[in-house]
Amino acid sequence: MNALDAHWRAANYLSAGQIYLMANPLLSEPLRPEHIKPRLLGHWGTSPGLNLVHTHLNRVIKARELDALCVWGPGHGGPAVLANSWLDGTYTETYPDVTRDAAGMARLFRQFSFPGGVPSHVAPETPGSLHEGGELGYSLTHAYGAAFDNPELLVACVIGDGEAETGPLAASWHATKFLDPVHDGAVLPILHLNGYKIANPTVLARIPEDELDALLRGYGHDPLHVTGDDPAAVHQAMAAALDLALDRIAAIQRRARADGDAGRPRWPAIVLRTPKGWTGPREVDGQPVEGTWRAHQVPLAGVRDHADHRHQLEQWLRSYRPEELFDEAGRPRPAVLACLPEGRRRLGASPHANGGLLLRELPLPPLERHAVEVAKPGTALHEPTRVLGTLLADVMAATAGRRDFRLVGPDETASNRLDAVYGATAKAWQAATLPTDEHLARDGRVMEVLSEHLCQGWLEGYLLTGRHGLFSSYEAFAHIVDSMVNQHVKWLRTARRLPWRRPVASLNYLLTSHVWRQDHNGFSHQDPGFVDHVLNKSPEVVRVYLPPDANTLLVVADHALRSRDHVNVIVAGKQPCFDWLTLDQARVHCARGAGVWEWAGTENGGPARVLAPARSTDASPPDVVLACAGDVPTQETLAAADLLRRHLPELAVRVVNVVDMTRLLPADVHPHGMPDSEFDALFTPDKPIIFAYHGYPWLIHRLCYRRTGHRHLHVHGYKEQGTTTTPFDMVVLNDLDRFRLVMDVVDRVPGLGARAVALRQAMADVRTRHHAWIREHGTDLPEVAEWTWTG
Amino acid sequence: MNALDAHWRAANYLSAGQIYLMANPLLSEPLRPEHIKPRLLGHWGTSPGLNLVHTHLNRVIKARELDALCVWGPGHGGPAVLANSWLDGTYTETYPDVTRDAAGMARLFRQFSFPGGVPSHVAPETPGSLHEGGELGYSLTHAYGAAFDNPELLVACVIGDGEAETGPLAASWHATKFLDPVHDGAVLPILHLNGYKIANPTVLARIPEDELDALLRGYGHDPLHVTGDDPAAVHQAMAAALDLALDRIAAIQRRARADGDAGRPRWPAIVLRTPKGWTGPREVDGQPVEGTWRAHQVPLAGVRDHADHRHQLEQWLRSYRPEELFDEAGRPRPAVLACLPEGRRRLGASPHANGGLLLRELPLPPLERHAVEVAKPGTALHEPTRVLGTLLADVMAATAGRRDFRLVGPDETASNRLDAVYGATAKAWQAATLPTDEHLARDGRVMEVLSEHLCQGWLEGYLLTGRHGLFSSYEAFAHIVDSMVNQHVKWLRTARRLPWRRPVASLNYLLTSHVWRQDHNGFSHQDPGFVDHVLNKSPEVVRVYLPPDANTLLVVADHALRSRDHVNVIVAGKQPCFDWLTLDQARVHCARGAGVWEWAGTENGGPARVLAPARSTDASPPDVVLACAGDVPTQETLAAADLLRRHLPELAVRVVNVVDMTRLLPADVHPHGMPDSEFDALFTPDKPIIFAYHGYPWLIHRLCYRRTGHRHLHVHGYKEQGTTTTPFDMVVLNDLDRFRLVMDVVDRVPGLGARAVALRQAMADVRTRHHAWIREHGTDLPEVAEWTWTG
Repeated sequence: MNALDAHWRAANYLSAGQIYLMANPLLSEPLRPEHIKPRLLGHWGTSPGLNLVHTHLNRVIKARELDALCVWGPGHGGPAVLANSWLDGTYTETYPDVTRDAAGMARLFRQFSFPGGVPSHVAPETPGSLHEGGELGYSLTHAYGAAFDNPELLVACVIGDGEAETGPLAASWHATKFLDPVHDGAVLPILHLNGYKIANPTVLARIPEDELDALLRGYGHDPLHVTGDDPAAVHQAMAAALDLALDRIAAIQRRARADGDAGRPRWPAIVLRTPKGWTGPREVDGQPVEGTWRAHQVPLAGVRDHADHRHQLEQWLRSYRPEELFDEAGRPRPAVLACLPEGRRRLGASPHANGGLLLRELPLPPLERHAVEVAKPGTALHEPTRVLGTLLADVMAATAGRRDFRLVGPDETASNRLDAVYGATAKAWQAATLPTDEHLARDGRVMEVLSEHLCQGWLEGYLLTGRHGLFSSYEAFAHIVDSMVNQHVKWLRTARRLPWRRPVASLNYLLTSHVWRQDHNGFSHQDPGFVDHVLNKSPEVVRVYLPPDANTLLVVADHALRSRDHVNVIVAGKQPCFDWLTLDQARVHCARGAGVWEWAGTENGGPARVLAPARSTDASPPDVVLACAGDVPTQETLAAADLLRRHLPELAVRVVNVVDMTRLLPADVHPHGMPDSEFDALFTPDKPIIFAYHGYPWLIHRLCYRRTGHRHLHVHGYKEQGTTTTPFDMVVLNDLDRFRLVMDVVDRVPGLGARAVALRQAMADVRTRHHAWIREHGTDLPEVAEWTWTG
Repeated sequence: MNALDAHWRAANYLSAGQIYLMANPLLSEPLRPEHIKPRLLGHWGTSPGLNLVHTHLNRVIKARELDALCVWGPGHGGPAVLANSWLDGTYTETYPDVTRDAAGMARLFRQFSFPGGVPSHVAPETPGSLHEGGELGYSLTHAYGAAFDNPELLVACVIGDGEAETGPLAASWHATKFLDPVHDGAVLPILHLNGYKIANPTVLARIPEDELDALLRGYGHDPLHVTGDDPAAVHQAMAAALDLALDRIAAIQRRARADGDAGRPRWPAIVLRTPKGWTGPREVDGQPVEGTWRAHQVPLAGVRDHADHRHQLEQWLRSYRPEELFDEAGRPRPAVLACLPEGRRRLGASPHANGGLLLRELPLPPLERHAVEVAKPGTALHEPTRVLGTLLADVMAATAGRRDFRLVGPDETASNRLDAVYGATAKAWQAATLPTDEHLARDGRVMEVLSEHLCQGWLEGYLLTGRHGLFSSYEAFAHIVDSMVNQHVKWLRTARRLPWRRPVASLNYLLTSHVWRQDHNGFSHQDPGFVDHVLNKSPEVVRVYLPPDANTLLVVADHALRSRDHVNVIVAGKQPCFDWLTLDQARVHCARGAGVWEWAGTENGGPARVLAPARSTDASPPDVVLACAGDVPTQETLAAADLLRRHLPELAVRVVNVVDMTRLLPADVHPHGMPDSEFDALFTPDKPIIFAYHGYPWLIHRLCYRRTGHRHLHVHGYKEQGTTTTPFDMVVLNDLDRFRLVMDVVDRVPGLGARAVALRQAMADVRTRHHAWIREHGTDLPEVAEWTWTG
């Protein structure tokens, strides 16, 4: 225990030192104002508890030769995790200038929360971390994501009692019903109750222990309780609890793996109660600090100017007896390091926290196997996601042995028509089953739970530990994880800039059951704004694709699944949708991201027969550009082009389809952005552009505002008009229908004659007829329902 | 029980009828294809359970003369709640054309999920509802919000077992630690386990009953279990459980109110297990349906074309024996209506579900009492939110007796410097307390819990039942409730169009601890995009304000708290910020929403002394417009104007500040939008506009793209560049600093001479000096730290 206590004291000393000191790291002279940082920033309160857990994890990892990872929920306790990484040597291995001696300790201290230094949280910069912990709620779901398909891994997860009040964390406990003791590793939750948030007690710290115990049992756990404020006693209790927990985990895994026990185990969990800011100042200016919310950030303020506080700080730091912990050169003494495991077993060195090291190429099938035949565009129909499902089934089958691909979704895999995957794997399920159940199995790799938060967190944890996956969701409800994707993009943005962090597989969203086809649900299920949200984030990370048909969806999904360090948002329908492009055409079109569909237009003397790039230098420009992005807008645009070709054949119409939304951005804004010359060639600099877009129309303006022809751009999209109605009525309600597009063409193209005016009136008349018909019959006009492309 | 069963059967019949029938509502003739709707849409699975709960609530409300409200978590079971409203007469009172007879029944059936009819969910259109239930997770938090400060109210809350898997719902159970048995009403959760989601079993339905029981006890409940599939037995058990639960609630309230028992009560909760799609088709085409996920939506498909299915539907409908339930004219027979309470006691008629009926004006103090004195702009500093805190304290004091105002936030009231409110009320807290605790009380009206979801849901429930409130949050983490605010805006948008729905108080956000001042936390805490998200929503509902100082914050907050049926987002800093405007100036400026600060510019021959509107017709236009929105951008803009005035006095600079972001929108897009004439007068049609904006810069383009001068607009804002650093370094990292703004002016204004070029170089040099200084000293350049306005 002395060695453990020495390590713990060293980590506490180093944690406090990071918050306060910019010089004199070993206190080799009395503290003077110039040793103190000018801005005192950081979080002390949680750090001693994290240090205690880290110290004790070191012991058991070494003793049991464990392959372990720890997710630090209270990631704002950055000083603690940094201190431990410095102690175990991984910090110096990662950042050689921060040596494990006095000079390096001085650097470690100074850089913390200092301009040009390192962030105050457990960040991508921190060795051994895969969780930032800034936005609370996701530690436990990340831990489970890391444990899935890692049967030899122990994932410890420290959950702060503040974080435990969040919704995502509260739901995460139920992951006990999804963790397979045979194929997955173990998760050991350590609920660290230090009793306070920023300014309040916490709920779980202030309910009776038997109530908390019942709660954890209700979550499916077998809890162990460690409580105290006397370090020696807590060391004993914590060591005993960890040993008991690990014995139980080993027994659970043995029973499941060797004995074939198919029951759902009651996994251990530890409840650790220690004071907030433990071992820090007990009182400051007559007010209690240790053991209260006042210890949350910097317990002693104004230390530079306030001699009493400075003296108190020095006493505090010296209470750890640094001279016992570090030699004269500032190197940790052997007793301090005695508890540490070696090499990759050190928590700071876990390859699972730098998952790119473990990543293997995903075995993707040839797309030819899944592509649909397209003899003529716009005549046959397929459900794009159903076609994608057959590809995903292949991936599931090809990874059956490797187990490094998972599909997550909130109970929508079948609804989203990806159910071909059930031919290759089942849905993970450890709870009870009934004879009527279908596709449930303990070792399934489809994860369905009615929580977008859990889906997202599981997948993030899975990807960051070097595996692959896809999240399919109703489009509108992707907003539930807006803040989580923020944090993931921020993580990737920063990790990409760290050469030692290896690329991980992208986070891929398939947003389906989209705004235009909420037939059963209506207005509350209509929101295409996730794309807007994602496009606010770092351009090196975010990608948005709107494939218009089955083959383009295949090509886009294949690309997304092969990509690294991105967040790919794919919006695609599950309802029958016209096939427009053959596989070869889809490959060319998706590679370009945006292109002219010459066969659909009437420029250059009539429809061409092949997909070709815009050739504005070869021929006279069109009179109008019909642009579209998204499956429903593409259908309406093609129907409008069809009407124009038949009724105004002399009008030179160009049809442009956009698959990759970021191509619309300027080239200096996004890596996929188009140069102005290409944009002008595609959309013309001066002709009306009638753009039918899947989502909020102003997004297109936000992407294109710098372009030459921007003032000629007129966008139709979703305008928050919706209810439970027919698909075509939805586009009419939002002025995205074919008839309205034709009217807009007539309004925008100057110099059209009387036939155009008559056509416009005819279009307005059909819309009027639609309104009457639908209220009478509840269905769409036969001419709409039966339309196919006739070009 | 016969009467209850009759009512239940009637509701079941009416629910199925809505999904299937467009004619022949009483089955007075055999079902023919033309009686069946062409599109079968809706959710049968949950409806029989909701009908059972409604029937039994009717009984106890009548027997006990309760004032009750029910929140229907499985709101997709719209047919059930509509059926009950039709039965209790409130539907006809609200929509007189849907009479309580055969003609009305036919209308009720036909309109459901029919174009031009009513949505498939419990929507604003549904009498007695305040919860849509489309996006799952919020029923229980809404129920608590409704119960707070409604001591005589019983809020029953049906929670589906799918919804129970969500994070927000999982956290909501802990609201037992926030409900005051003296001043608040009771919440009775009814966890309805029908066992399935769309395509899967549910977690809580598949864990052993003792584990579920432990879970609910861990949440602080005393659960009662009702299980069965035999209607007669379930009626008996449900009636007994409801009676027991209500007896216990009455006893808890009596002990707390009459006996002064200050202990935290263990509130009852009911677990109701009945089959999904109960009483519907047992099997369809040889596959089990009742009691499985297949009953989720429409259990019998293709009924129009498929004679066997049609026959099965007819058998199913006739199994309810409609002839016993309705007379020849289609009127419910007396036995069916025997269980119903009368008047306002009917769940469909509760005024709490139409909270505007109960709303009182909020007693707001005169702003003079709280405004700060401003002798000269830009010299004194105040923390704007601290000043607002004194106003909120007044409101808390003035509503101490009425108890119709609450402040919610995730543990940040003090951190956000609103702690003056603790002079008037405390934080609500029913769990254990310690002597060191501060500002905790059972009857407190500040709600702090580390869950943005609970904060949002509580406040929504509180507002929709006719009260007032404010949600203060870290700006970045408002995204956690993106999807919740979507649903609330959709609710308000629809409710505003229903004349019988009375206006409710707006949902007011105070977003502080904003992107520019995350000193302790860094990159993960930096996200100004909530504004972007909200501005995608219905313009009749959403409002966004960025007050630049303390007095403007007071004026904006006062306006927001008086407004109705809006979502107001106010972004304001908590850090010391220059005072720019006196209270009178702030009132004028906020009323305009955007205006010239003449005293800050140099047009018209030099600084003017008073705030005045743009008078472009009176004088020559300026050479450049410096526009700003947000406190930090305003400071940087004024500092830039100061530099320009001193170094390029001949340059005619106009300073425009924008408080109300929606003023930038065209007048036909948003009710606050500016006509082009006003925009041109303010910003000029042809001069460079250097716009310093608080958030993502492209938002300004998205708002202004239609304006004449848009191509002269250059926006500086947050570009996802950030870490733990100083406030000024943050603006430098994002090119929003004063020096960069001056450089941009020099770059954009044509024809400036050598002195301007020299100034530009000097500015670039200061930025270089800043980079070196900050990495050396960790603080900002003295000339920046000490700057004040010198005009």
